[in-house]
Amino acid sequence: MQIVVLAGGVGGSKFVQGVRRAYPAAEITVVVNTADDITLHGLRICPDLDTVMYTLGGGGDDGRGWGRLEESWRVLAELGAYGVEPSWFSIGDLDLGTHLVRTQMLSAGYPLSAVTEALCARWLAADPQLHLVPMSDDRVETHVVIAAPEEPSGRRAVHFQEYWVRLHAVPDALEVVRVGIEDARPAPAVLTALAAADLVLVAPSNPVVSIGPILAVPGLRDALRASPAPVVGFAGILGGAPVLGMAHRLLPAIGVAVDAAAVGRHYGARAADGVLDLWVLDQRDADSAGSVAAAGLGVAVTDLVMRDADATAAFVRFAVDAGDAATAPARRG
Amino acid sequence: MQIVVLAGGVGGSKFVQGVRRAYPAAEITVVVNTADDITLHGLRICPDLDTVMYTLGGGGDDGRGWGRLEESWRVLAELGAYGVEPSWFSIGDLDLGTHLVRTQMLSAGYPLSAVTEALCARWLAADPQLHLVPMSDDRVETHVVIAAPEEPSGRRAVHFQEYWVRLHAVPDALEVVRVGIEDARPAPAVLTALAAADLVLVAPSNPVVSIGPILAVPGLRDALRASPAPVVGFAGILGGAPVLGMAHRLLPAIGVAVDAAAVGRHYGARAADGVLDLWVLDQRDADSAGSVAAAGLGVAVTDLVMRDADATAAFVRFAVDAGDAATAPARRG
Repeated sequence: MQIVVLAGGVGGSKFVQGVRRAYPAAEITVVVNTADDITLHGLRICPDLDTVMYTLGGGGDDGRGWGRLEESWRVLAELGAYGVEPSWFSIGDLDLGTHLVRTQMLSAGYPLSAVTEALCARWLAADPQLHLVPMSDDRVETHVVIAAPEEPSGRRAVHFQEYWVRLHAVPDALEVVRVGIEDARPAPAVLTALAAADLVLVAPSNPVVSIGPILAVPGLRDALRASPAPVVGFAGILGGAPVLGMAHRLLPAIGVAVDAAAVGRHYGARAADGVLDLWVLDQRDADSAGSVAAAGLGVAVTDLVMRDADATAAFVRFAVDAGDAATAPARRG
Repeated sequence: MQIVVLAGGVGGSKFVQGVRRAYPAAEITVVVNTADDITLHGLRICPDLDTVMYTLGGGGDDGRGWGRLEESWRVLAELGAYGVEPSWFSIGDLDLGTHLVRTQMLSAGYPLSAVTEALCARWLAADPQLHLVPMSDDRVETHVVIAAPEEPSGRRAVHFQEYWVRLHAVPDALEVVRVGIEDARPAPAVLTALAAADLVLVAPSNPVVSIGPILAVPGLRDALRASPAPVVGFAGILGGAPVLGMAHRLLPAIGVAVDAAAVGRHYGARAADGVLDLWVLDQRDADSAGSVAAAGLGVAVTDLVMRDADATAAFVRFAVDAGDAATAPARRG
């Protein structure tokens, strides 16, 4: 069985742990958002790829939610002692090793997908059926336009990392801009995996800055729509609020309500120019299932809290079975 | 009083500490060898500049002789865990901060002398009359040709750092090659300092891989010869062996005996196309003073062991006074 998961960082990692638990023998390709990426101090940093890699490799700090276990910050303190900015983005010493290797390989001409494979050779050696693939080998960076009364235009664009890490998503987001997205192409392995997939899962990651950029890579959405596999999406908004992160601060900027059903309708049904066959809601949001169904989407309702890998595995299996039941007649027809 | 010191790393640092002790009010410009420099893991590393900077700034590990006090090696261990080579060059976490800042500034277009000044703003703030200047803003790297029976040519070239750090200077050095030296120019501040100097001191650093490259930068030797200041050189070979380092393994490759007097004659007298006015020998080498004088050089003999800054200050003052006495009649003439 070949499974493709579209995922961001922290939530995506937990989700994939559940998928692996649910399907121990499957070949899983995780298509990871890279629009969070940033270059700082000359180092190319891919926060989502690294979070997924460390977490699935057992080296992530699950308590903190990002970065490495037993991390230290000595290099960062040195940069501070030299007065080097920015100081708001914390790069740990262990994490820095990854960035050095990546930066060096990229500057030697390797595409990001090859770099990711090389890094994962260390972290995912115990699970050779699990592959991480960046959504694109091309550079895409999400910038957030915020209100800035001090500017003549009243607006200012900041890198997503600055919006989230430095500004804590406090300023209202007026617009989300994906720099470089028009010229990006899906990483070749993404297209291969989607074409060969038996099942595609959209993780409950941020619809604006994690799943959004993946679907916005030209050609990727079409490849997803053309995939022979059922596409099942999972809400990350539970009871009107995101479980993790700042989706509630960004959804308004793209005109989508902070509401699980609204996100499902935003992704849309494959039968109606969208990408999903089935949208899975948390039980707290059962009341809105009708509006999802009205948009042509299959709907399943369950407990979507990712308490641990077993809980996540249970809701993934439940949803996939529900999707099979819903789509089986159509397939036979 | 304006003093220029030509220096390498470890010995050069100790020497400059003595010079500062001897002349507390002088403006001291240290022209530092950069032919040891190397790029590893995408980072530009300047071992001699850093050793001098850390040592004079009070952050050097004097016991180890290089690198930072209270250093750790976590990033390096990560690179090793990824299987990244080379693993024989130890970059500490604190030291890495310096390399990151330098690499970033160089790639932004700043010349190495401006980068060095920026780094020294942190380290030498307590001594604003002390300046470190790289011999050149251009890239020069010393390679050592060693015997390699496994090669068809029987020879192989390795970077000086590999010769010294990985191979511990064990293989015979057949030749010393300074890659890039023909196209290098002295850093502008070197020429300014030499033209304005009241005193030029050549540290007891390695004649082949520290002082040699400095003098080999096209135009620098001429600027030194044209300097209005007396030029006083100090032997780093004491009693037939170097106090520090591997000069005894490299001098044969340039046809110079491992002997203090031979090194003095190799530098030569300004009056005879060389660079020195006075050559200072350790008392153990007093017997060879005649051969130095015969080459047209002034000679002074004293205790050259750099036990501490006071001892070094004492022999520097002694030598400079001896040089003044020797050259005063000529000046009057």
